[in-house]
Amino acid sequence: MDALAHVDAYWRAANYLSVGQIYLLDNPLLTEPLAPEHIKPRLLGHWGTTPGLNFCFAHLNRVIAERDQDMIYIAGPGHGGPAAVAHAWLEGTYTETYPAVTQDEEGMRRLFRQFSFPGGIPSHVAPETPGSIHEGGELGYSLAHAYGAAFDNPGLVVACVIGDGEAETGPLAASWHSNKFLDPLRDGVVLPILHLNGYKIANPTVLARIPEAELVKLMEGYGHRVHIVAGDDPATMHALMAETLEEVFAEIAAYRDGRDGRLPMIVLRTPKGWTGPREVDGVPVEGTWRAHQVPLSGVRDNAEHRAMLAEWMRSYRPEELFDAQGRPVAEITATVPAGGRRMSANPHANGGELLRPLRLPDFRDYAVEVKAPAAQASEPTRVLGTFLRDVIAANPDNFRLLGPDETASNRLQAVFDVTGRAWNAETLATDEHLAPGGRVMEVLSEHLCQGWLEGYLLTGRHGLFNCYEAFIHIVDAMFNQHAKWLEASKKIGWRRPVASLNYLLSSHVWRQDHNGFSHQDPGFLDVVVNKKASVVRVYLPPDANTLLSTADHCLRSRDYVNVIVAGKQPVLDVFTMDEAVAHCTRGLGILEWAGNEDGGEPDVVLACAGDVPTLETLAAAALLREHLPELRVRVVNVVDLMRLQPPSEHPHGMSDAEFTALFTPDRPIVFNFHGYPSLIHQLTYRRANHGNLHVRGYKEEGTTTTPFDMVMLNDIDRFHLVIDVIDRVPHLAVRAAGLRQRMVDARLRARAYTREHGEDVPEIRDWTWPA
Amino acid sequence: MDALAHVDAYWRAANYLSVGQIYLLDNPLLTEPLAPEHIKPRLLGHWGTTPGLNFCFAHLNRVIAERDQDMIYIAGPGHGGPAAVAHAWLEGTYTETYPAVTQDEEGMRRLFRQFSFPGGIPSHVAPETPGSIHEGGELGYSLAHAYGAAFDNPGLVVACVIGDGEAETGPLAASWHSNKFLDPLRDGVVLPILHLNGYKIANPTVLARIPEAELVKLMEGYGHRVHIVAGDDPATMHALMAETLEEVFAEIAAYRDGRDGRLPMIVLRTPKGWTGPREVDGVPVEGTWRAHQVPLSGVRDNAEHRAMLAEWMRSYRPEELFDAQGRPVAEITATVPAGGRRMSANPHANGGELLRPLRLPDFRDYAVEVKAPAAQASEPTRVLGTFLRDVIAANPDNFRLLGPDETASNRLQAVFDVTGRAWNAETLATDEHLAPGGRVMEVLSEHLCQGWLEGYLLTGRHGLFNCYEAFIHIVDAMFNQHAKWLEASKKIGWRRPVASLNYLLSSHVWRQDHNGFSHQDPGFLDVVVNKKASVVRVYLPPDANTLLSTADHCLRSRDYVNVIVAGKQPVLDVFTMDEAVAHCTRGLGILEWAGNEDGGEPDVVLACAGDVPTLETLAAAALLREHLPELRVRVVNVVDLMRLQPPSEHPHGMSDAEFTALFTPDRPIVFNFHGYPSLIHQLTYRRANHGNLHVRGYKEEGTTTTPFDMVMLNDIDRFHLVIDVIDRVPHLAVRAAGLRQRMVDARLRARAYTREHGEDVPEIRDWTWPA
Repeated sequence: MDALAHVDAYWRAANYLSVGQIYLLDNPLLTEPLAPEHIKPRLLGHWGTTPGLNFCFAHLNRVIAERDQDMIYIAGPGHGGPAAVAHAWLEGTYTETYPAVTQDEEGMRRLFRQFSFPGGIPSHVAPETPGSIHEGGELGYSLAHAYGAAFDNPGLVVACVIGDGEAETGPLAASWHSNKFLDPLRDGVVLPILHLNGYKIANPTVLARIPEAELVKLMEGYGHRVHIVAGDDPATMHALMAETLEEVFAEIAAYRDGRDGRLPMIVLRTPKGWTGPREVDGVPVEGTWRAHQVPLSGVRDNAEHRAMLAEWMRSYRPEELFDAQGRPVAEITATVPAGGRRMSANPHANGGELLRPLRLPDFRDYAVEVKAPAAQASEPTRVLGTFLRDVIAANPDNFRLLGPDETASNRLQAVFDVTGRAWNAETLATDEHLAPGGRVMEVLSEHLCQGWLEGYLLTGRHGLFNCYEAFIHIVDAMFNQHAKWLEASKKIGWRRPVASLNYLLSSHVWRQDHNGFSHQDPGFLDVVVNKKASVVRVYLPPDANTLLSTADHCLRSRDYVNVIVAGKQPVLDVFTMDEAVAHCTRGLGILEWAGNEDGGEPDVVLACAGDVPTLETLAAAALLREHLPELRVRVVNVVDLMRLQPPSEHPHGMSDAEFTALFTPDRPIVFNFHGYPSLIHQLTYRRANHGNLHVRGYKEEGTTTTPFDMVMLNDIDRFHLVIDVIDRVPHLAVRAAGLRQRMVDARLRARAYTREHGEDVPEIRDWTWPA
Repeated sequence: MDALAHVDAYWRAANYLSVGQIYLLDNPLLTEPLAPEHIKPRLLGHWGTTPGLNFCFAHLNRVIAERDQDMIYIAGPGHGGPAAVAHAWLEGTYTETYPAVTQDEEGMRRLFRQFSFPGGIPSHVAPETPGSIHEGGELGYSLAHAYGAAFDNPGLVVACVIGDGEAETGPLAASWHSNKFLDPLRDGVVLPILHLNGYKIANPTVLARIPEAELVKLMEGYGHRVHIVAGDDPATMHALMAETLEEVFAEIAAYRDGRDGRLPMIVLRTPKGWTGPREVDGVPVEGTWRAHQVPLSGVRDNAEHRAMLAEWMRSYRPEELFDAQGRPVAEITATVPAGGRRMSANPHANGGELLRPLRLPDFRDYAVEVKAPAAQASEPTRVLGTFLRDVIAANPDNFRLLGPDETASNRLQAVFDVTGRAWNAETLATDEHLAPGGRVMEVLSEHLCQGWLEGYLLTGRHGLFNCYEAFIHIVDAMFNQHAKWLEASKKIGWRRPVASLNYLLSSHVWRQDHNGFSHQDPGFLDVVVNKKASVVRVYLPPDANTLLSTADHCLRSRDYVNVIVAGKQPVLDVFTMDEAVAHCTRGLGILEWAGNEDGGEPDVVLACAGDVPTLETLAAAALLREHLPELRVRVVNVVDLMRLQPPSEHPHGMSDAEFTALFTPDRPIVFNFHGYPSLIHQLTYRRANHGNLHVRGYKEEGTTTTPFDMVMLNDIDRFHLVIDVIDRVPHLAVRAAGLRQRMVDARLRARAYTREHGEDVPEIRDWTWPA
């Protein structure tokens, strides 16, 4: 056989195995006539995209073998799961990973049976699939994942098949421009293969139905050299694809050595369900939307369909592909690359295998000096920026900082002392901090930031995504998919832990007074806590030193999603570094200096989580101390939100005894929270004293105004907290009626001042803890 | 003056007013030397994009006047709020809308002072801004909104300015392809103006820095005729823009009468902060990222900057633009279109003014006949499809059904009896149900579906978005922005109510057993309930008849976001139509036939919300009746989730007395919920009997398996509910130990059967209420 005959044999074998997975419970080699009991009772799977995916696998394998090319494969149409599984089995990886699924007839039987079967494997490409970093779930992220994998992997080619359905999504449409952020010297290369099979579920696709000249312009407009491989005759297509890949890899070489700034891409146009049934029950199937899932239904009961299935499977000539024991014949195994060069076994696709720990400077060296608590202010993210600067410097090929053009806005600009923003398009004299290979990645697309970072992490590197808090909701769905990937991966022994996905949410709800209502939403935390406790962590450090400690902790962690909420505006420095470390280690604790319980049981607990709520709580505590000195107040600050849950719900959860020790068995708790109040109730409703818990937080009130007006609009201000205490501590209502009225008046005065002067009352704005 | 001199005067006036809004508290006409007290203490606003927005306004006004063109304006860079406000004031609309802001010096003073000022108006384009349907919040949706506005508005041109920052987002990148869904005969036209000023916040933008030839190819690839208007000399640019708009409107005419399938678009390339300070403190500002927000800072304290501000404002020659009383001169007011032709007063931008109620057939006519409760099954969405079919037929230009290629998958296919899918690209013989002007809009982009629908609703029409439940998270952020728009609009008297945004979430978490873990997420409800109670509604109809009643209710409502969760798979018909109407009107109620409390207080309450949880709850009730007949069980079904809250939290909320009457003061409640259990706790934690509430729901367990295995994985199955009852009703543990063990065994048997046979136990799958 010549090379293309080998490729064709491999392709037919993969197609045979794919069909078998969708339909067969037994009789994998069709050694007996196909009977109803050989057919699965529920036919689940997607045939339509599968032969195209197999075609690409087969041809890329030839290139890998010929060039000893380091390459991974991202299947955008991940619902074509049978293809990725077939490929891993043919390459021997499946058996290495799951020894029960041997590379013989019995193994093939198990391979078929387990697919989309209870107790078996998912129907889509999933963490369970060897060689994958890309779930076949929600569509849109394949190309961003591919670029994430390519960054800082100079020898790697990431082949990325993009379905024409996925190509209609927004994130994918934006991802094409990722090539402007790629550095030919320091990064690998992405080879996009736009697979036009013409249909999504029940509809034609846009890119398959625009004039070809328009499509070519679009791809050239995205900065690519375009190669079209179109047809349905296998022999012709094999020759065309092989020839095209030769050109493509020559162009990649030219890109790499700087002879050409443009990267190639391939438009692969093949019929949907290629090589499957042409027509079923009198209507066309191959090449139409009807081939999307299972082209032949009712095969178990319909003898005619069953005969068509047998004929379809035999059309791949299995007798040439597998020996009598069901093993792939030598002509096929000979084409399989060796060891880690197999795309199903490439270590980049199990990134934990390649993970190098970050070299972290001692975060304590970046501490703000705090001589007295809450007596001075710092900008937490600006302080963090100095730590991140040195993290970047110490890890020049292993860490990236991502954000939608907000790194400087979020006051992390110290990082620009040592690096630039990745940029490979035109630069002008007035630009600042642009550089190919820059460690900071800024693009006005939260989707791209998230997708790049996911690809980067899943291939064994580290990163931090800084974002405006409100707009992180843009990637809620991507977060969900990544969290699910981590949840599933933790159950899979051979998947090695990867670095956590770290979010820094700055420019948060309380400091979007200037941008207004549309920029005010702290609800990402609610999305996050719905995911499994084994993968999610939420931190609300109240000052610069606790932010440093938290960030260090998160950068060292594995397999989590860490959400850090921290402001960029000046907030009071509450903790010395030693105190910050102790406080963050406990996750929450009493600020003894701020309370006045004097060893006795307090009358009321003022709790807080988040920088602005903490500031207001401290100010309220000071007001109470001044005006109601006999009231015993305890102040509790929470950094690690998950501590509030019971240990049965989250590994960080406090015991009931600890919770009661902190929050008392029966005293009123006024909890001032950064986000929507319901989240605190959700985390604490099982606690004995929950009935006395009163939570303040964002209640969806806001506009363009001043910072203190924002907190007043939502009743989380110091004056309202004092009112809340008066209203909730028994017998205080009468005793403190005068104080209550003074608080009401103070709010009115603050509001009037703001409306007259356009800024906050200076004594409120510049308040510090009384010396 | 000739026409372009008028345009220039208008532009200068708008620029003057924009700068004044950003900086001035007083002295609006600069009649006195500019002093510190004339300057705002906090300078908030975005100058960078504003002169370009003003330039477009001015030129489009000329076209409107000349052609009596019906046109609205969407400002993608909505943070250029001063532009939209200046325009409304110059056109007189601002004064008509807000009479205190008169069109004279005193009004100008108020106009300046109120901008970004406490008690004033937002810094971004907002619901408060006359002429807007597009919030200047999160970026990415301008073009989708524009197309939504254009659908079914054949005479309308929607001018849409897209910032080059926004153009980097995914949703915007996908939105360009909306032109394939536009019908030249039935729809209006969108005129995209890609405004390249070169920078986002601190960075250059991708589209501004790719070679112009690539940019042109990209836009041609998107299917447009491309016109470039580039430069910085005002006179040259006026001439070029005017000439270009003549060509553009000639091309639009050719498109409309079918002579040309391609629509024009304009690339407008002008310096960022055009006509602003060239250089400040020795660094260039105009034409750089430094012009993004406020080019001159510290104007209050810095006399040199203050002098530069005065010089800058005087450069617009205000003495030629406003008379001594501060009124715009006749040369400017003469260019303003009349009445509703003004873009700031066009009724399409206050869509409630144009809203026609839907013609709704009687939903009762589509009822499933139910002879006995839970004795037969229907596919709820398939039944709903017949109703929607007739809604579409009765409202051929006023209602659209949107979804990411899932209308048939969600079993609404009856609609294709009367309409097609909107499609204006190539069609093939094998295609089905494609038609220009089709009422069904399918594109594999949830962002586009949502953006189109928002634009359609805000211009006074109606619609329904059907989507897989898990993937509706893709538009979490868009939902947030739309909900905030509605929240703000409700406080603005002149904004007329618009039709509600209706979601139908089908293919929900419990019926994604075949697609697997990545497709299982019921958390959108949690995102929704964070928004204000005044705008959000959540419904979980358990069967076909309640779905019909709910859908009818939602389609009649105004200014809400309604979320309906309903499955497409067969579920038991629980209610006759009369019962369904009564049940939906109450929002929740006791299913007396399913319980056996016999007038006494029940021993336990089985509550449920959602179709699959209701089915399992009924089966559990039947098991209890069979095996523990002496146990008094009450079954409560919840359709309207908001009923669970106290009336202080939501207008649908039940009083505590009602809640206690339904859920008892002290008996165990086992609540089987469609979504994450925490949501039920969040809604009910204030209720007296909350301590006895035990909620089952999705706990993030799933894979590719069978439907019953999915419910077992999450412990919401009938057997586990019986166990939950036994474990929670006092003294039952001993009495029912045998039954408990039988339930444990039944689960194990069901699991084993599924793993052996690949499908659910038939008696479980086909279970109906015992006759």
